[in-house]
Amino acid sequence: MSTHVEIVEVGPRDGLQSEPGVFPTAAKVEFIRRALAAGLRRVEVASFVHPQKVPQMADAEAVLQALGAPPPGVRFIGLVLNRKGFERAVAAGCNEIGMAVVASDTFNRRNQGVSTDESIAAWLEIARLAEQAGVRTQVTVSAVCGCPFEGEIAVERVVEVARRVAEARPFEIALADTIGVGVPTQVTEIVSRVREAVPGIPLRCHFHNTRNSGFANAFAALQAGVRTLDASLGGIGGCPFAPAATGNIATEDLLYQLHRAGYQTGVSLDAAIETGKWLQEQLGRSVPGMLVKAGGFPRPATATA
Amino acid sequence: MSTHVEIVEVGPRDGLQSEPGVFPTAAKVEFIRRALAAGLRRVEVASFVHPQKVPQMADAEAVLQALGAPPPGVRFIGLVLNRKGFERAVAAGCNEIGMAVVASDTFNRRNQGVSTDESIAAWLEIARLAEQAGVRTQVTVSAVCGCPFEGEIAVERVVEVARRVAEARPFEIALADTIGVGVPTQVTEIVSRVREAVPGIPLRCHFHNTRNSGFANAFAALQAGVRTLDASLGGIGGCPFAPAATGNIATEDLLYQLHRAGYQTGVSLDAAIETGKWLQEQLGRSVPGMLVKAGGFPRPATATA
Repeated sequence: MSTHVEIVEVGPRDGLQSEPGVFPTAAKVEFIRRALAAGLRRVEVASFVHPQKVPQMADAEAVLQALGAPPPGVRFIGLVLNRKGFERAVAAGCNEIGMAVVASDTFNRRNQGVSTDESIAAWLEIARLAEQAGVRTQVTVSAVCGCPFEGEIAVERVVEVARRVAEARPFEIALADTIGVGVPTQVTEIVSRVREAVPGIPLRCHFHNTRNSGFANAFAALQAGVRTLDASLGGIGGCPFAPAATGNIATEDLLYQLHRAGYQTGVSLDAAIETGKWLQEQLGRSVPGMLVKAGGFPRPATATA
Repeated sequence: MSTHVEIVEVGPRDGLQSEPGVFPTAAKVEFIRRALAAGLRRVEVASFVHPQKVPQMADAEAVLQALGAPPPGVRFIGLVLNRKGFERAVAAGCNEIGMAVVASDTFNRRNQGVSTDESIAAWLEIARLAEQAGVRTQVTVSAVCGCPFEGEIAVERVVEVARRVAEARPFEIALADTIGVGVPTQVTEIVSRVREAVPGIPLRCHFHNTRNSGFANAFAALQAGVRTLDASLGGIGGCPFAPAATGNIATEDLLYQLHRAGYQTGVSLDAAIETGKWLQEQLGRSVPGMLVKAGGFPRPATATA
């Protein structure tokens, strides 16, 4: 089993979309450039959704334009929820498209305004159009560990949705604990059951640290053979003033743990920590990531003695 | 393998000793009573150390006196670092004694004023005296995942210290990632190596969430067969004004994950969350635990819909 782990940086999209305020376009561009400079190679740069519903992402095209073409080996991922979003993302220059389908029908209707079945149909069409356009696509099955409206989601339901989205042969399927309720044993079961159902398609996992289980879940996914994980620099995502903080697992905290556990990522821990600190300055508050406070280990003797 | 996990509540000692202020004796007593009411059966109620060195623990005897005798099935654990502390703890009415020996000699000298060898000798004497007095004793090997002064600690060193303290046949040996630098793979190795070295003595683990690896480490310990874990209600421990937050893993966050993963603890998650909230009020600030913010899952439909 490979010891290389690929990290998909989702801070510019999943992180910033939950912020109470709108991050300026220029700051988003700097955020993404810092991620690339740290060594991250897949970055979710924006979502292409209705600007009235997610005003934080209204400048998606402007962000892509300011970024310019992706450097060699880099993927600028645009998240889309329907065909219109797909067309916008491709026109804007994204060289990878991510679509999301929620395992819970109620959550899918609340989040995307249509049923899960309709989202699956939209995905199958998008995948066909993307193949014609030569753009690589992947799809996320969301809320796999639980739904805020329906409660528990049967693993059979997750498997069924994964099997149906797999018909379009995405290069990867992601499994997302969107609301941060999962625990490691659950992750182990879901990953193994989905892998059986969609053999040959690599799995990616997406965890939130809402209930302090995100990193344990990440290690459970690694143990189950997953080698691509989503994370956000600073662990941003979720409003600090809301009752439930819902940040992604922090990229720098994940890097620390992966590197110390013998995995390689190609990403600089120091640069990631610096970006976490930069995000704190931009947001004017502390971020959920712990490495920005605690620092790595071992530290130079002069810093600790 | 049993699905029962025993949690040792260390908040009244490891949590409060790191607070910048001194928690009033009456509040400590209420804290411990709340822990017992939640179903916790082993509580580290105080440390018996020099009051000038740890003023937060200067009222150790007063706490024990106010608590009265431990209820049936309950262990009031006194942490001691030398013979004098042991004698104080027994006189105060503790019915379990915990001693700590640091795997790193430099850290042991800084923390306890003597070498690791001297602490081991003190432990062996304490264990002998405790046996004569009929008080059960256990010992913690500290800093097993790394030392702030020496950096990496070889697993061979941890094994050697564990083997030497095991000569006194404690009913349990704890392995502590005192500064929160460990990762799951390291925990797996340390637990399995120590178990080989001290067969027949149950192992307990103690994790801090300083670098967001505490819960992943707890699950690694469970996978390696450990069935007793330290935790602190609210995840308290470590000063919020210090550069590196160093709280224990939060009892309520651990309960959530354990219960959802199919383990039994005999502890009420709801009561633990309520105590975490009570601690926030007492301390006048938010605690590191996430469940006090996010709540359990699934929640009643009325609370989420």
